[in-house]
Amino acid sequence: MSRAGSLRVGVLASGVGGNLQAILDTVHAEGEATVVAVGTDNPGAIAIGRAQAAGVPVGVFPMDDYPDRLRRDEALAAWLASHRVELVVLAGYMKLLAPAFLARFPRRVINVHPALLPAFPGIGAVEQGLAYGVKVFGVTVHFVDEGVDTGPVILQRAVELPHAETVEDVYEVLRPLEHELLPEAIRLIAAGAVTFDPESPRRVRVGGSRPVSSK
Amino acid sequence: MSRAGSLRVGVLASGVGGNLQAILDTVHAEGEATVVAVGTDNPGAIAIGRAQAAGVPVGVFPMDDYPDRLRRDEALAAWLASHRVELVVLAGYMKLLAPAFLARFPRRVINVHPALLPAFPGIGAVEQGLAYGVKVFGVTVHFVDEGVDTGPVILQRAVELPHAETVEDVYEVLRPLEHELLPEAIRLIAAGAVTFDPESPRRVRVGGSRPVSSK
Repeated sequence: MSRAGSLRVGVLASGVGGNLQAILDTVHAEGEATVVAVGTDNPGAIAIGRAQAAGVPVGVFPMDDYPDRLRRDEALAAWLASHRVELVVLAGYMKLLAPAFLARFPRRVINVHPALLPAFPGIGAVEQGLAYGVKVFGVTVHFVDEGVDTGPVILQRAVELPHAETVEDVYEVLRPLEHELLPEAIRLIAAGAVTFDPESPRRVRVGGSRPVSSK
Repeated sequence: MSRAGSLRVGVLASGVGGNLQAILDTVHAEGEATVVAVGTDNPGAIAIGRAQAAGVPVGVFPMDDYPDRLRRDEALAAWLASHRVELVVLAGYMKLLAPAFLARFPRRVINVHPALLPAFPGIGAVEQGLAYGVKVFGVTVHFVDEGVDTGPVILQRAVELPHAETVEDVYEVLRPLEHELLPEAIRLIAAGAVTFDPESPRRVRVGGSRPVSSK
């Protein structure tokens, strides 16, 4: 499946797999990166069917099959490594990854989060934002570290929704932003356009031949 | 100076007074609100000259003239009340206000802050954002409560600056946003278009005849 020289991507998803589909339909279809493995913790994830339809190998790693999270994450990491995954993409993956997993893919795990981090990390980001009463919502793609949504930011996009009342009002707008931003981050990483500021490693420089527009 | 029926605004400023000037040039000049008093803690504030040039009474309340912050804020509140101020606007006012001051103007004190709250409250908001490595910056106008930049949000505006390197890079963009957003909030309050959600008092409803655009 993988094209020579194309970045080998492993995607982890727990649910519907909308972000997985966005990746398959864009960077994967266009050959800028290749999804070589899709892992999940949920045997009922709709994402599984999407991966199979695209001919991508699926690994199912339910918690119940392992004595603890560490063993499960070790098995998952080993499976991804066996597919020679170079970048791990959390696309609606709802579990925290063990430090040993992250150590195996240093600065090579990214996540998409439905808020402008550092505001509203963790579960229920949009609910948190509505409860606070913010007027601007947004999406962040970031490197995953050992904290909850605390890793260095790669891309962010904001949207003003001053009259949003419900979670669905907001998600309706954020979902397409996620589907745009996550493939864009993969494209930039594949192109070697994402680097760390040596003087300030929290600051990610994004540039190169396809810079992100500053609209 | 005040037009009959126009909202009577007291502005507090500590420095250059750019936001004060923006208020004088817009809602004040257009008669939607009337700046009836400008207070400052800094006898050297450039804002003083701007107020005088507009014919607005100035009160200077330096800390050194009072035994403590509480007494100073009491004097400031009494002076604003003597000018029958209905809305207090913090426009680059760098001091925290005593609870007794806020109690005198309940839900009638607003502030402008150069970040998308609740991210990066307090001093050095832009510096904090750059150090975190955010790609989106912004401005918040909010009601002031007893915390540091924790009150209910009235307006927010975001701007994507993925390549910003310095505080000045960011402020160059945020300054005009502040000058737009703070007068807009005063205009909306003067028009009675800013109300609290009775079920969730942190959520401010902004509407009426001049709704804020959701671009």
